[in-house]
Amino acid sequence: MASNKTLSSLGEFGFISRIAATACSGTGVVTGIGDDAAVTALTPGMQLLTSTDMLLENVHFRRSWHDPYHLGRKSLAVSISDIAAMGGIPRWCLLSLAVPKDIPLDFLDDFTRGFLAMATEQNVSLIGGDTCSSASGLIISVTIMGEQLPERIIRRSGAMPGDDIWVTGNLGDAALGLKLLEEGRLDLLQEREQYDDIVSKLFTRLLDPVPRSGAGQLLAQSGLVSSMIDISDGLLADFGHIAELSGAGGEIHLAALPVSAAFRAHVASSPQFPHHLVLSGGEDYELTFTASPANREKIASLMKNSGIDATPVGIVSSLPGVKVLDSDGNAYIPPTPGFNHF
Amino acid sequence: MASNKTLSSLGEFGFISRIAATACSGTGVVTGIGDDAAVTALTPGMQLLTSTDMLLENVHFRRSWHDPYHLGRKSLAVSISDIAAMGGIPRWCLLSLAVPKDIPLDFLDDFTRGFLAMATEQNVSLIGGDTCSSASGLIISVTIMGEQLPERIIRRSGAMPGDDIWVTGNLGDAALGLKLLEEGRLDLLQEREQYDDIVSKLFTRLLDPVPRSGAGQLLAQSGLVSSMIDISDGLLADFGHIAELSGAGGEIHLAALPVSAAFRAHVASSPQFPHHLVLSGGEDYELTFTASPANREKIASLMKNSGIDATPVGIVSSLPGVKVLDSDGNAYIPPTPGFNHF
Repeated sequence: MASNKTLSSLGEFGFISRIAATACSGTGVVTGIGDDAAVTALTPGMQLLTSTDMLLENVHFRRSWHDPYHLGRKSLAVSISDIAAMGGIPRWCLLSLAVPKDIPLDFLDDFTRGFLAMATEQNVSLIGGDTCSSASGLIISVTIMGEQLPERIIRRSGAMPGDDIWVTGNLGDAALGLKLLEEGRLDLLQEREQYDDIVSKLFTRLLDPVPRSGAGQLLAQSGLVSSMIDISDGLLADFGHIAELSGAGGEIHLAALPVSAAFRAHVASSPQFPHHLVLSGGEDYELTFTASPANREKIASLMKNSGIDATPVGIVSSLPGVKVLDSDGNAYIPPTPGFNHF
Repeated sequence: MASNKTLSSLGEFGFISRIAATACSGTGVVTGIGDDAAVTALTPGMQLLTSTDMLLENVHFRRSWHDPYHLGRKSLAVSISDIAAMGGIPRWCLLSLAVPKDIPLDFLDDFTRGFLAMATEQNVSLIGGDTCSSASGLIISVTIMGEQLPERIIRRSGAMPGDDIWVTGNLGDAALGLKLLEEGRLDLLQEREQYDDIVSKLFTRLLDPVPRSGAGQLLAQSGLVSSMIDISDGLLADFGHIAELSGAGGEIHLAALPVSAAFRAHVASSPQFPHHLVLSGGEDYELTFTASPANREKIASLMKNSGIDATPVGIVSSLPGVKVLDSDGNAYIPPTPGFNHF
C-alpha cells in the first residue's frame, strides 16, 4: 500500500534512523552511523582510496527515466567504479541527500533499498551521511572509500609507449539506451517487457551499471597492468586522461572495439554504424587499462577465468594525442568529444 | 579587476586544475587530486574518522549574507568540527560543488581561496571532489577525514550519571548574529566597520566559525572525558544526543551558561535575556563534553593553558530527559527546539 508520507513527516533524524537500522556493518567498521564521525579501521598495510560524486536531478538523472530503486543502486555503483579503477577493494560509503518536499517517502525507501542492495552486493558499508531539504530537485552526494596495498594501486599515470590498451566488457550500450530516451522513446522503457530483450539490455546498462570491482582487484593483484581508469565519460575522453598523465598518446582501432550483441542488433538497420556511441558515449563504467604486450596472454586468461571479457583495442604511443584508426588504417574523426557537464 | 568569466568558460577540468594547483599536499597524502580516487596513508595504529555535510544555498546559507571567501572557510570549518567532536586530528577533505550558471568565476575563486585558507590553518589537505552545474542554487558537499588512536576517540555514548557537562567558548553569538540578519539588518553586516565591534563579533561567529579542533584533540589526549559532541544545532539538542546515546539525562544550569561580552552588551537593553539563543541557537560549533567531577580541576587547567575557555554548565543524570534549571532551581521551558531542516 503506497503511503503519501514525505520526509517532512518523518524528520531528518527519523530518516537517518531508518537508514541506520537497515545499513549493514562490515569489514573494518568500528562505529557506523550515529556519531559525529564514523570510525573505521583500515586493513594493516593498506592505503586509503577515496572518491566522491554528486548526482543532480535533470543533470545526471531524471526521475521519469530512473526508478528510485535503480537510481539508488546506480548512485553507489558509479562511485564504486572509481575504486575499481584504482584496483581497490571498496569498503565504506557516505550518502548525502537533499530532498525536494514533493518526493514521497516511498521513493526514498525504494532509493535506499536500491542503494543498500548495491552496498551488500559489493561488500560496502554505509557508515554516514547527511540529509536536508532541497528547493529544486533531488541531489545525491556519495563518498566512497576503499583500500589496497600500496604496491597494487593502479594509477592513470603509468602507461608506457608500446603498451596494449584494453577495455573490459562492451562499450556503447548505455549511450545507445540514453539516445533512445533522449529521442523520446520513454514508451520503450515503460513497456520494455513487451519488446525483445535487446532494448531491455541497453536500458539495463544505462540504468543499472555494474562496477567492475572484481576485475579491477584481479588486475591489481596480478601486477600486469601499467595504468587504469574507469570509462564514465567515454573511452576516448577517459583514455585521454591516461595518455595525458602518462605523457603519452595512443591509437585506438575502431574495428577492435567490443560491442554487445544487443548493440549490434539494434543498430543493424542504421545507415551508419554509430561509432561515436562506442568511442564517446559515457556511463559504460567499464575499465580501460594498459599493459605490456608481453602480458597479453596472461591478462586474457586471467580475465576469461574471472568471467569478465577484456579486449585489446589499441596501442599506447610516445607522441601525444589519441588517434582513432579505421580498419584501413585511416584516421576516424569522432563527431563529439566526451560529455561535459558545463 | 573583476572578471565576468563563469565556470562555463573554464570547464570542469579547468576548474579542477585551478584548485589542484593551489591545494596543499600534506600529512599522509600519497596521491591527491587527479586520479579516479585519492590515495592516503593513515598514521600506523590510528583509526579513520569520516563525516560529510551538504550545504545548500537558501537553506544553510545565503549569498547576500555569506561572502564567498568566508563561505568557503565555513564550508570546511563545520566539517572539521565533526572531527573535533570525536577528538580526532583532521587530515583530508573532499569538496563537491554544484554551481549555478550565473555564479561568476571570481566568486568561485574567492570561495576556493577561503576553503583552502581554512584547510591550511587546520592542516587539512584537499584531495578530491566533483563539480557540476546546478539548475538552482549553489550546492556544497564536503567530506572530511581525520584520524586518532582508537583509545583516544571520544564518542557521544560515554556520559555517566554524575558527570559534569562542559561547554567550550561562548554560546549564542552565532544565533544572535543570525537573528539580526533574519530581522533584515543587512545594513549592520554591510557597514559593520562603522558600528561598534559588538555587532561585528556576533557576525564573525556566524559567518566565520572556528572549529575547536585543538581543544578536541587535547581533551582526547587527556583521557579525562567520557563523551563529546559539537554544538551545531544548539546545546540543548546536541547534549540531547549525548544523553540519548548514553542512556542518561541531564540538568543544565541557566546561570552557568557562558556568553560573550558582545552577546551580553547587545542584549543589555532587551526586556528579557534571550536564553533560548544560548540554549538552542545553532551554529556555535563549540564542543560540549562530559567528565567525572574528579577531573574538574585538571580539565579547567588543561583548557586554560590551551587558550580555550571551558565551563561546567550542568550534571548528567540517570533519568532520561534534559532539564534546564534557572538560578532558583526552577525548570526553564525553552520556547523553541533545535533547528530542524525539515
